[in-house]
Amino acid sequence: MSLKHFKARDFEEWEKGYRINFFNSLGGFKSLNLIGTKSKSGLSNLGTFFSVMHVGANPPLVGILFRPTTVPRHTLQNIHDTGYFTINSVPESILFEAHQASAKYDEGVSEFEQIGIAESWNAGFPAPYVQNSGIKMGLSYVEHHQINANATTFLVGKVEECLINETALSDDGFVDHTLLDNLAVNGLDTYYKAQTVRKLPRAKVETKKES
Amino acid sequence: MSLKHFKARDFEEWEKGYRINFFNSLGGFKSLNLIGTKSKSGLSNLGTFFSVMHVGANPPLVGILFRPTTVPRHTLQNIHDTGYFTINSVPESILFEAHQASAKYDEGVSEFEQIGIAESWNAGFPAPYVQNSGIKMGLSYVEHHQINANATTFLVGKVEECLINETALSDDGFVDHTLLDNLAVNGLDTYYKAQTVRKLPRAKVETKKES
Repeated sequence: MSLKHFKARDFEEWEKGYRINFFNSLGGFKSLNLIGTKSKSGLSNLGTFFSVMHVGANPPLVGILFRPTTVPRHTLQNIHDTGYFTINSVPESILFEAHQASAKYDEGVSEFEQIGIAESWNAGFPAPYVQNSGIKMGLSYVEHHQINANATTFLVGKVEECLINETALSDDGFVDHTLLDNLAVNGLDTYYKAQTVRKLPRAKVETKKES
Repeated sequence: MSLKHFKARDFEEWEKGYRINFFNSLGGFKSLNLIGTKSKSGLSNLGTFFSVMHVGANPPLVGILFRPTTVPRHTLQNIHDTGYFTINSVPESILFEAHQASAKYDEGVSEFEQIGIAESWNAGFPAPYVQNSGIKMGLSYVEHHQINANATTFLVGKVEECLINETALSDDGFVDHTLLDNLAVNGLDTYYKAQTVRKLPRAKVETKKES
């Protein structure tokens, strides 16, 4: 296997676009999600996120990384203002629209309307969901941490409710995203379908490889 | 589409294993990585991680979430002690071994040896790499944040060097993990191959959907 070796000096010498593509794809596949919020003035907002992370099961916590706040970040601002947001999985049928939600729309315009993604509301929950998503979480703000090294924000939310297409829910609680054609992503723009290779039993020290 | 609605009270009433499976899989696909470290006493350590996150391209930063430190976390301890670690992608050929690295091996035992994953060293870098990985990063510790809500730790590292199988590297800097059979994961135990659906041009407000 021929491996190419890059060092810090190479990273600095690379053209900006090359460096962005490289480091956005280096770590591998990510989940693709749409985050729905409502502004103080009642406007619905939708953003594409590749940075949703499992933080804990009890209490149920999810983390999201937000880019530096040097340009307006409507999603982050709305979460701070209202305390609530939704995370929605993206099936292949709305890939174009989901990707489009990463464009920089003007303030005062709902991305749901502009992009053509239907929004839906669940009684009692104060943020908008994506109607055509099969796995949706409604979350409340818990805490956030500023990453000093590059002014990004790691925000943690608590799952207050879920809406799940029953097709995806296994008897043991596992949520199978492949059964709803939900997508993964890498880099800035490359979307993937996933195909199950294997489900393995819990790893124990004494487990031996099957021949 | 029939959606099942779960609320906070349901989450609390679920059996623990069901709740763990549910919330570990709810957010969708994750990258699968092995993290290599060296202890103060010079012992190599290897751990399976599903929580590697892109934090920034310039400087190149990566985030990892660590479970609560209520039980010994060798990887986290070694990073604090030595300041360095490696992140290694997992091709299908070493899936069993990678999964096995999540078992709780005793202290004083190198997981590389116990599991049968060959370790490799790159001159001048003070943490061990996985030999059969085609995408490897060598990182230095930058900062960490304690998540108050559940005592997990979000740690940020800086990419100091990379070793990449040239097969995976596109002309624009994009690293294509599918070309090396690297895996994604969801839940605690379900591994996936990815298949490219589409690479889309950068989203602009004026972009129209192709018919």
